[in-house]
Amino acid sequence: MNFKLYKSSFLCATEDYINSKVVLAGVPMDFTVSFKPGSRFGPSKIREVSVGLEEYSVYQNKNLFNKVFYDMGDLELPFGNVDRCINMIFEFGKKVFKDDKIPIFLGGEHLISFPLIKAAKETYDDLVVLHFDAHADMRDDYMGEKLSHATVMRRVGEEIGFKNLYQFGIRSGSEEEISFAKENGHVFFIYEIERFFEVLSELQNKSVYLSIDIDVVDPAFAPGTGTPEPGGLTSMQLIDIILKMEKLNIIGADIVEVSPYYDISDRTTLLAAKIIRELVLLVD
Amino acid sequence: MNFKLYKSSFLCATEDYINSKVVLAGVPMDFTVSFKPGSRFGPSKIREVSVGLEEYSVYQNKNLFNKVFYDMGDLELPFGNVDRCINMIFEFGKKVFKDDKIPIFLGGEHLISFPLIKAAKETYDDLVVLHFDAHADMRDDYMGEKLSHATVMRRVGEEIGFKNLYQFGIRSGSEEEISFAKENGHVFFIYEIERFFEVLSELQNKSVYLSIDIDVVDPAFAPGTGTPEPGGLTSMQLIDIILKMEKLNIIGADIVEVSPYYDISDRTTLLAAKIIRELVLLVD
Amino acid sequence: MNFKLYKSSFLCATEDYINSKVVLAGVPMDFTVSFKPGSRFGPSKIREVSVGLEEYSVYQNKNLFNKVFYDMGDLELPFGNVDRCINMIFEFGKKVFKDDKIPIFLGGEHLISFPLIKAAKETYDDLVVLHFDAHADMRDDYMGEKLSHATVMRRVGEEIGFKNLYQFGIRSGSEEEISFAKENGHVFFIYEIERFFEVLSELQNKSVYLSIDIDVVDPAFAPGTGTPEPGGLTSMQLIDIILKMEKLNIIGADIVEVSPYYDISDRTTLLAAKIIRELVLLVD
Amino acid sequence: MNFKLYKSSFLCATEDYINSKVVLAGVPMDFTVSFKPGSRFGPSKIREVSVGLEEYSVYQNKNLFNKVFYDMGDLELPFGNVDRCINMIFEFGKKVFKDDKIPIFLGGEHLISFPLIKAAKETYDDLVVLHFDAHADMRDDYMGEKLSHATVMRRVGEEIGFKNLYQFGIRSGSEEEISFAKENGHVFFIYEIERFFEVLSELQNKSVYLSIDIDVVDPAFAPGTGTPEPGGLTSMQLIDIILKMEKLNIIGADIVEVSPYYDISDRTTLLAAKIIRELVLLVD
Amino acid sequence: MNFKLYKSSFLCATEDYINSKVVLAGVPMDFTVSFKPGSRFGPSKIREVSVGLEEYSVYQNKNLFNKVFYDMGDLELPFGNVDRCINMIFEFGKKVFKDDKIPIFLGGEHLISFPLIKAAKETYDDLVVLHFDAHADMRDDYMGEKLSHATVMRRVGEEIGFKNLYQFGIRSGSEEEISFAKENGHVFFIYEIERFFEVLSELQNKSVYLSIDIDVVDPAFAPGTGTPEPGGLTSMQLIDIILKMEKLNIIGADIVEVSPYYDISDRTTLLAAKIIRELVLLVD
Amino acid sequence: MNFKLYKSSFLCATEDYINSKVVLAGVPMDFTVSFKPGSRFGPSKIREVSVGLEEYSVYQNKNLFNKVFYDMGDLELPFGNVDRCINMIFEFGKKVFKDDKIPIFLGGEHLISFPLIKAAKETYDDLVVLHFDAHADMRDDYMGEKLSHATVMRRVGEEIGFKNLYQFGIRSGSEEEISFAKENGHVFFIYEIERFFEVLSELQNKSVYLSIDIDVVDPAFAPGTGTPEPGGLTSMQLIDIILKMEKLNIIGADIVEVSPYYDISDRTTLLAAKIIRELVLLVD
Repeated sequence: MNFKLYKSSFLCATEDYINSKVVLAGVPMDFTVSFKPGSRFGPSKIREVSVGLEEYSVYQNKNLFNKVFYDMGDLELPFGNVDRCINMIFEFGKKVFKDDKIPIFLGGEHLISFPLIKAAKETYDDLVVLHFDAHADMRDDYMGEKLSHATVMRRVGEEIGFKNLYQFGIRSGSEEEISFAKENGHVFFIYEIERFFEVLSELQNKSVYLSIDIDVVDPAFAPGTGTPEPGGLTSMQLIDIILKMEKLNIIGADIVEVSPYYDISDRTTLLAAKIIRELVLLVD
Repeated sequence: MNFKLYKSSFLCATEDYINSKVVLAGVPMDFTVSFKPGSRFGPSKIREVSVGLEEYSVYQNKNLFNKVFYDMGDLELPFGNVDRCINMIFEFGKKVFKDDKIPIFLGGEHLISFPLIKAAKETYDDLVVLHFDAHADMRDDYMGEKLSHATVMRRVGEEIGFKNLYQFGIRSGSEEEISFAKENGHVFFIYEIERFFEVLSELQNKSVYLSIDIDVVDPAFAPGTGTPEPGGLTSMQLIDIILKMEKLNIIGADIVEVSPYYDISDRTTLLAAKIIRELVLLVD
Repeated sequence: MNFKLYKSSFLCATEDYINSKVVLAGVPMDFTVSFKPGSRFGPSKIREVSVGLEEYSVYQNKNLFNKVFYDMGDLELPFGNVDRCINMIFEFGKKVFKDDKIPIFLGGEHLISFPLIKAAKETYDDLVVLHFDAHADMRDDYMGEKLSHATVMRRVGEEIGFKNLYQFGIRSGSEEEISFAKENGHVFFIYEIERFFEVLSELQNKSVYLSIDIDVVDPAFAPGTGTPEPGGLTSMQLIDIILKMEKLNIIGADIVEVSPYYDISDRTTLLAAKIIRELVLLVD
Repeated sequence: MNFKLYKSSFLCATEDYINSKVVLAGVPMDFTVSFKPGSRFGPSKIREVSVGLEEYSVYQNKNLFNKVFYDMGDLELPFGNVDRCINMIFEFGKKVFKDDKIPIFLGGEHLISFPLIKAAKETYDDLVVLHFDAHADMRDDYMGEKLSHATVMRRVGEEIGFKNLYQFGIRSGSEEEISFAKENGHVFFIYEIERFFEVLSELQNKSVYLSIDIDVVDPAFAPGTGTPEPGGLTSMQLIDIILKMEKLNIIGADIVEVSPYYDISDRTTLLAAKIIRELVLLVD
Repeated sequence: MNFKLYKSSFLCATEDYINSKVVLAGVPMDFTVSFKPGSRFGPSKIREVSVGLEEYSVYQNKNLFNKVFYDMGDLELPFGNVDRCINMIFEFGKKVFKDDKIPIFLGGEHLISFPLIKAAKETYDDLVVLHFDAHADMRDDYMGEKLSHATVMRRVGEEIGFKNLYQFGIRSGSEEEISFAKENGHVFFIYEIERFFEVLSELQNKSVYLSIDIDVVDPAFAPGTGTPEPGGLTSMQLIDIILKMEKLNIIGADIVEVSPYYDISDRTTLLAAKIIRELVLLVD
Repeated sequence: MNFKLYKSSFLCATEDYINSKVVLAGVPMDFTVSFKPGSRFGPSKIREVSVGLEEYSVYQNKNLFNKVFYDMGDLELPFGNVDRCINMIFEFGKKVFKDDKIPIFLGGEHLISFPLIKAAKETYDDLVVLHFDAHADMRDDYMGEKLSHATVMRRVGEEIGFKNLYQFGIRSGSEEEISFAKENGHVFFIYEIERFFEVLSELQNKSVYLSIDIDVVDPAFAPGTGTPEPGGLTSMQLIDIILKMEKLNIIGADIVEVSPYYDISDRTTLLAAKIIRELVLLVD
């Protein structure tokens, strides 16, 4: 007779940090969000539903069983204390990058990308950020707060240089932040998504950090998120885009704003899990 | 310290009727529907979720903050009395058109389009109706009733002439009503949606009333409606179609059959709100 | 005054077995599934929501009112006894095919296709199976069980010869089953869906049994299923594919894994009902 | 092999009108309601879930299999035409009472009780009405309409004399209607529910029409209703009250405002079905 | 013709601060919660559903139309900054109490009670706190944070003296906090709820601040909350307890942890609205 | 920095089988059920939500931290093969009882109780079964199958003698099974629940196996179950009954038919988890 406890790590992840090139880590912070909170439950639910997927990918004809990758679980964070959280996430990020891992972070809200990218920058001097999102997240402050899910890419740009920030799928923003993005960074609107394939070559020789806000996908495909914005990518388009990154030097990634309670069908978490599987197979 | 009551008007709508070219008004009638009622809650929920959108449109590079438009709230209607309702809606429509406004009506069920279009006809002699819907709504009567959500476009055609009625996205109807529509009007099935772009030029010099039944969109993108019909437009297709209307002389519009209780993700109301934002920016 | 009991048969189905070429039958078995059960409620809910559709198809310009077809209701099966169920389904299938009917079976789980196809094979020696699914279902056994929803197409292939099995829309499987499928059958992945139109001509002169697992459609369009897999067809794509089959000699079909409890919008059952309507109009 | 179509009549109801003392009939009108519509789906869903109950009652030690009762199905009503509906319901009620049946009507909204009770009065001169509800429903008009779900008991009282109206479970009303009810009828608030047992003897020799608005039960037990009002009866209390009526001469009953879409657990419809079973066993 | 915007203030609340004895204010902070966030939407949803209640109470035979009370709307708070929030709430509380109002605060999470009670203490030296909750909330810190929804009553006790804290309905806590509560305060477990009526007289001559965490009610009656704990009060019991407070000198109150997204039936918000109506009628 | 993977064992359960008196084990079989399947997800979800409870019980003033108990995880069972499952469960049960453990089994459907009780009987000759359920489960067969969730207590009675079977909370059954139960066993209907306290003394010196079908609780409190039956216990009543068992010699227990997908509030699984906590504290 066999017994098992319900999957609490992602698919066939090991517990071997040393020998793993790719590491997964949950960062379940969600308290600066301005609309519907709940992404703190993202990482655990993504792991839970991953049992519904295969380890093998028909897209890449590769198998997770042939990879050694590590699922660290979730970082324990103090609820409601933004500064302590940001600091802990930064310290954690620094260590993982110094250890020469390729981390995939599971949010949590988008603000977590700021300390993580800042940490990556300490290791990778030629860092560029590839950002998929419905929202530009380029405000300078939000209700007087500099650190917010709505300001995260402004902070990121200040850290890495706005010319190193590439944004795709954008379909929402204030006039000011969109102007700022156009002038200072590389912002591509949802109706320009095909231009991603042009930009790919520009990124070829850089260290790329990939940040995916799940709301870049249309809420038909990913209803489980806090600020759904109609008119986005299909699941298939996002999968296709990811697969096209195989030549890039991805040094880390995050997938954020997955909020399981708003999707009883679990298709949002399943999509996130599938993207993570493809990324693990792609980057390692 | 600032206090606010939850948004009860649409985005940054003013309370200035006189100086507004565009006016919004809810018409929360939903009692002739044959399947799932509930669109009476459409207007208030569309206003409520509009807080999740920006005033600025990346599609048109225009900003609602630069517009003066007015949100009248909802017309108060006697539940269950069709005749009194139709009459009140007609009188209201007449006044708004006479005042030279461009109204955008928020349904409510589709039957409201009949008195509204009849009212528009009193002001605009060259009126054509541009109708997006999954259903033809061209029955002569429904269970003996002449005024029903299923007969609305038949009544409209009788009022404005069937040759002035253009229907798009249709994928459901009885054999009789489809025959009638083919012979008398301009009916384009869902698989002919591309022909809309051809027809655009025909409409260029007319006064156009736009009537959008949200179920023209596939229920994956707009599950919150009373008679969902699989196989429809994507959100992005509908947004694209709207943006293509910028050269038209739109003199009024409605968006109907949004039924919030059947969509816990709010993506149907968010899509409706987004379309309304684009329309306000487009027509004024 | 008229009274009616809620639709319990599919649209305008008759009770005349003798004169019906097409017969519908529910096969509400769902107990070998490995993830979310519930497809036993599929057939009754598909009938119930069919009231929301028209008998007339705008796609084919044909009307069910002009057809004589029979809805047998659901086969009564003993819960939990796989062997007895499989046997009863097989005996039933044999009779229907011997009676020269074109049956459309409503699942229930995918395992029901095995006894049904085996039954078809007794009548049709040149049988080929056209299979639409997200999953290959080609495992040899599942947790030691040879008869399972995950092994059904392996059993089918053993029965009819793997060269007579054509699979489309596949995007999930273990490495072993995908290898097996590639070597022995005809497996087309989701990103090769366009190749269906090439394969059509190969099938022209064969007796074709069509097996549709509703999860071939993306969970955005069909969330009501037990093992949703993101990245699938749209509703419109599946409808289009079905319509393209009009030249084929379809001798039977099933539509399985529709699980109504996971979709409060009913769009999954509505899609299934629409496909059934199109099939009845197509095959007869 | 046995086949069955999903239950479309209530439990083991027959199709024999002549020999049935008790008859069930659905009256799916719901368009004068002021808050959430949807009770039109009540009758069909109550029948559907009745398959989850036994024909035998442990409370009364009686078995429906030993009764001959008839389920007529639903009266077909024109959506949106209140006057025609009221008239049709009245004519139907008259016939059933004249035929010496004991009808149990399944709503639909509460307004249906008015024509039904008016019809009962034509046959039963000593009619009293026993009314269970959270709301007094005693307004004189509602937004100018005399016929509304909020005025139904005022209309009933005018028809049968307010002294023949007994209301229980009331916990909501305007000051005016409660004053009116206190002065003219017999109104018992929710905290006086025990007084029902006192009143029972007063009713012993009368012809009693029983009208149950499901919202008399607390929304914890019956969330599937349009105007839930916290602080009501438990399911067990209502069942107990019904069982205590066995000495009464109940000549007809209705159970209204069951709105299945607001209760995914089906416990509201199951409770309604259980009450109907107990009533059939009690009155015949 | 009348138009109205959807109710955005509570029932018939005025906009007259000066002449109102009772004032309502929303405090939509929810970011220190350890389980399911979402109570930020409590105040606006409570106002929205209040339209489903009457202004008149059958329990007290009193009418809100005869009261002048003010609904301030929601305090605007910076998301994610606990210290700034606590400070803003404290300053706001101080002003209201100094202005000699009886405020009723709508949460938001339970932590808001700490600055509000601290503010009350500045005006009322004889302050006692009456606390209804499933959880003791008496931890000294939570993951190193002193200010948390799980520590709120410890902070309150430190401020007002633990002997002035009365807790009822408690059925969850760590061994340490329960020990602390027993030794230092007055803690009554759910199975001792009857003792509330004894304690009433002790409180007669004090200034009483009432703090109600909606989860004191069983999740059957109030599923819309972040940390549901089975085995609680019924709605009717809580209403009854409130009504028994009519002799107390209540100087302020809050009702917290109402999280509308977890309750599609709205019965949690309706219960909260009903309690608020009874409190306004009771205290003024 | 601390990391954790989401709780996959019940509260503070250890992994030490040898030194644990109490052991928990999931038995996620659910395929003989006649209505809504889904209890296979019960055990894992009960563990997941247990994180929302405290280890300390205010009812018993005892702490799980002071207990050594073991959570074995879920028994891996072949989907759809009843005979193999029953046999595996029986073998597993035998081992646990022989090892002198007090097991608490988490269903899964009710049929699992049969092999478990049969296994208990091999160790405990004086075995009595204490059964809480809405349904008698005393049919001799169900659609020809002897092993079914609807026959489980008939099979149990045959194994242990019907005089050793005590059933409480029953409110549903066929006339035949209720007659059989009355004549042969001890059946107490829901309205006789108080008699449990009388019966307690009869059971004092026996080896008691406790079997709780969660549907004994009213669906208001436990909507997450496959065959809800209105008119049941409150959560508080069931907790109170459990606490009263402290003098009994409970040698094993199961809690079955918890089906998480039908309850988005999680209150059913939370209630189950709370009962398990109380049982662990009670029996050891």
